[in-house]
Amino acid sequence: MRIPLEPASGVPLYRQLERWFADAIRSGALPLGSRLPSTRGLAADLGVSRVTVTTAFAELEGSGLVVAAVGSGTRVAPVLPTVAARPNPRPVAAAAPAPAAEAWVDAWAGRPGGPGLIAFTGVGDPAAYPVVEFGRTLRQVLAREGAAALSYAPHPAGDPSLRRTVTQLLASQGIGVPPESVLITSGSQQALALVCQVLVRPGDTVVVEEPTYDLALRLLTSVGANLVGVPVDDHGMRVEQLAEVLPGSKLLYVTPNFQNPTGATLSAARRRALLDLARTHDVPVFEDDFAGDLRYSGRATPAIKSLDDGGRVLYAGTFSKLLMPGLRIGYLVAEGAIRGRLVEAKQVTDLGTSLLLQRALDRFVTVGRYQANLRRTTRLYRERRDVLKQALETHLPDARFTVPAGGLFTWVTLPPGTRADELLVAARDRGVDLASGERFYRNPDDGLSHIRLNFAVQPPGKISEGITRLAAAVEHLRGR
Amino acid sequence: MRIPLEPASGVPLYRQLERWFADAIRSGALPLGSRLPSTRGLAADLGVSRVTVTTAFAELEGSGLVVAAVGSGTRVAPVLPTVAARPNPRPVAAAAPAPAAEAWVDAWAGRPGGPGLIAFTGVGDPAAYPVVEFGRTLRQVLAREGAAALSYAPHPAGDPSLRRTVTQLLASQGIGVPPESVLITSGSQQALALVCQVLVRPGDTVVVEEPTYDLALRLLTSVGANLVGVPVDDHGMRVEQLAEVLPGSKLLYVTPNFQNPTGATLSAARRRALLDLARTHDVPVFEDDFAGDLRYSGRATPAIKSLDDGGRVLYAGTFSKLLMPGLRIGYLVAEGAIRGRLVEAKQVTDLGTSLLLQRALDRFVTVGRYQANLRRTTRLYRERRDVLKQALETHLPDARFTVPAGGLFTWVTLPPGTRADELLVAARDRGVDLASGERFYRNPDDGLSHIRLNFAVQPPGKISEGITRLAAAVEHLRGR
Repeated sequence: MRIPLEPASGVPLYRQLERWFADAIRSGALPLGSRLPSTRGLAADLGVSRVTVTTAFAELEGSGLVVAAVGSGTRVAPVLPTVAARPNPRPVAAAAPAPAAEAWVDAWAGRPGGPGLIAFTGVGDPAAYPVVEFGRTLRQVLAREGAAALSYAPHPAGDPSLRRTVTQLLASQGIGVPPESVLITSGSQQALALVCQVLVRPGDTVVVEEPTYDLALRLLTSVGANLVGVPVDDHGMRVEQLAEVLPGSKLLYVTPNFQNPTGATLSAARRRALLDLARTHDVPVFEDDFAGDLRYSGRATPAIKSLDDGGRVLYAGTFSKLLMPGLRIGYLVAEGAIRGRLVEAKQVTDLGTSLLLQRALDRFVTVGRYQANLRRTTRLYRERRDVLKQALETHLPDARFTVPAGGLFTWVTLPPGTRADELLVAARDRGVDLASGERFYRNPDDGLSHIRLNFAVQPPGKISEGITRLAAAVEHLRGR
Repeated sequence: MRIPLEPASGVPLYRQLERWFADAIRSGALPLGSRLPSTRGLAADLGVSRVTVTTAFAELEGSGLVVAAVGSGTRVAPVLPTVAARPNPRPVAAAAPAPAAEAWVDAWAGRPGGPGLIAFTGVGDPAAYPVVEFGRTLRQVLAREGAAALSYAPHPAGDPSLRRTVTQLLASQGIGVPPESVLITSGSQQALALVCQVLVRPGDTVVVEEPTYDLALRLLTSVGANLVGVPVDDHGMRVEQLAEVLPGSKLLYVTPNFQNPTGATLSAARRRALLDLARTHDVPVFEDDFAGDLRYSGRATPAIKSLDDGGRVLYAGTFSKLLMPGLRIGYLVAEGAIRGRLVEAKQVTDLGTSLLLQRALDRFVTVGRYQANLRRTTRLYRERRDVLKQALETHLPDARFTVPAGGLFTWVTLPPGTRADELLVAARDRGVDLASGERFYRNPDDGLSHIRLNFAVQPPGKISEGITRLAAAVEHLRGR
């Protein structure tokens, strides 16, 4: 143990020790019932006499904070006495008040829960995560690779074999790149964060869809970007408005497939037009393909990256949406000079993503489970999308909503007069969670007539029940 | 599959398809022997007729790139024909030349390997990683928590239970803080990266030890910090020189225990003086305690954080050095207003560290294995430190070197006239790897008379053999 003692302070050492332990016990840093170090060991550690330590422990025992038992040493008492009057000399564990900046994070984290809740939020359905198969894969990796899988990755850009595997998945999406162009990241969020680190300085203009993915907005804001929004319609970003705002901007952030939050898919014609404009104005494009494989209807549209022959498009994908968000593994495809700078940024940021998870994912995906899981998940979520559509038509006939060709999200335009922020409260009162449209706009008020529903999380019966409750919440607001 | 086709281009669709597949096969994006999609499925996906696809596949078969077998579909040929004369219309996989910025990363990643190598580099000894126990823990977590462990963490700051566990480890180091002050990071490298994001702007002055941890130097340089170095002696940073450089700086980065690379431990008196100066000049301190628990001799020195009653010290620890680097889990202790900004930075950077690994680590550490592993590892590495000392005294009597009280590193001052960069080459020629002193200085030339040896990686016999070889390399350089 390392306990700060001040020999010259005038306070006896045993008293300093006693106070330190008392504070640690009262703050919970030393849990109830936990064992204290041996007096001999602690005295040696701290370079004090054993008498000093036994005296301190005796004082603690006297005040009821610890109990000593012959043969089993000294332990923190199972129940603490009520707080003594003596003021703590140093507030070891004074809980700092939650500052304002954390409020948003806490709101995000402090979503409602409980068994009765029907949440149209989250990522996919945990019941669809391949838990058993992935557990088996982890075991195999540890058995075959042992300590090597628990070491640093051989390159900060990622495990070479997983990078190769990603190129094979990319090939099936029309993107042909060598493994050197693939950087393994801690989710696609980190892919965007690394690109910001390399390309965006405070005050730089970044063009985004509006509405767009809320945590991209927050990230871009946090790096000091000046955000310019381009509206989204049923065919994605209205690219014809890009020509005005693109010149001079440092980055174009776009989610072409099953956009978050609207569900819209950028048409093939617009993709080509977007890339032409990016070429003309020499602006790099960040293509966030967070759920590109999860398609339920219509025909596949080429990734913007697949049309790019100049290394202008940075393409990010993730295993979070389709497999398991808890892995936090995604990838970034980058070509040309920026690639080295991104790898350098990855290395100085966190040295590289967990090798154990990379090895397990590589093994998991290689053996064809990715495709099987995709087929199974696609079937499951397509049905849920259709059940949600049916439920909205039945219970909320006044609302307009999108029917996305894939992904996770339906975007609902509320009946006139219904505010999303009020609906969120009324819905939560009725055990339904959803995302209010505010968080997807630079100016939150612009989103007040929209909500986003994730249809992938709940089984069909819960979807219908949830929309029935949501309709009751809308009625309640109208009736006031 | 999503393959970009241009119906209006004048090139027949079957030809576009054929070229796309040919490029993907030649680039390796579609591996040898891999299965192509069915003609029916691909035609539906792309919205083209099935004849288009079968014609394209027939062309590919004709050029020897694929083989078709009745009943098992079409596959990429196991061996490719030599490259056809026809130029590729689009270089799908033209390998971009490695840009200059990646050179350093590649040098770092491209360390020598092979069975005969004796590397005094790396982290700890992989043979000491608790592979079996950790594998068992992972299994238990997946069995008991299932899909929940593969979801996002409930809070971007980390799993609540692991945050509590970390406060218990911290308590044994004299640091009493509540779980709310603990932020789980992807290694302690990310802890520093997040602090930089929040506190350091380009042009800001950051004070560091000199020499210091190379990847902290690179990170701070990459965010545009103006670095000021304070020399290190046997008792750590020469704090008396701090008073001159601290005023006006934005951060003080310090590794007080078993410093990387010198192995020096900052004396208790200097710790107090350092904190006093930081208070006086209102500068936050980043205390990087990367190996604080790994002590082999002497008495424990209080962490600077344990002396801090004003929330001025940001304290980072990691499980990488003691347990397994491949986990990439560390933690940052922060109090007061900055805490919320750091959690926000963590969230927008990567949403949070892998929950599966957090849950497994929490379970692993809770059951007392951390302490048992610490005792075992301490015994192992202490012996190796002493073997290295003996070997250096015997084989390199002209060199001066440190005998650290803990950690992983011995810092060797080479005999006069021996340059570290030349010695690195000569040592690698003899199958020995080490870290040249250059990388630990702002100006690499300042490190040319030093090398850093990690004594924890090799078993005793290899250490002696490695130093014998190193002495031969020194002799070789002298004999020129």
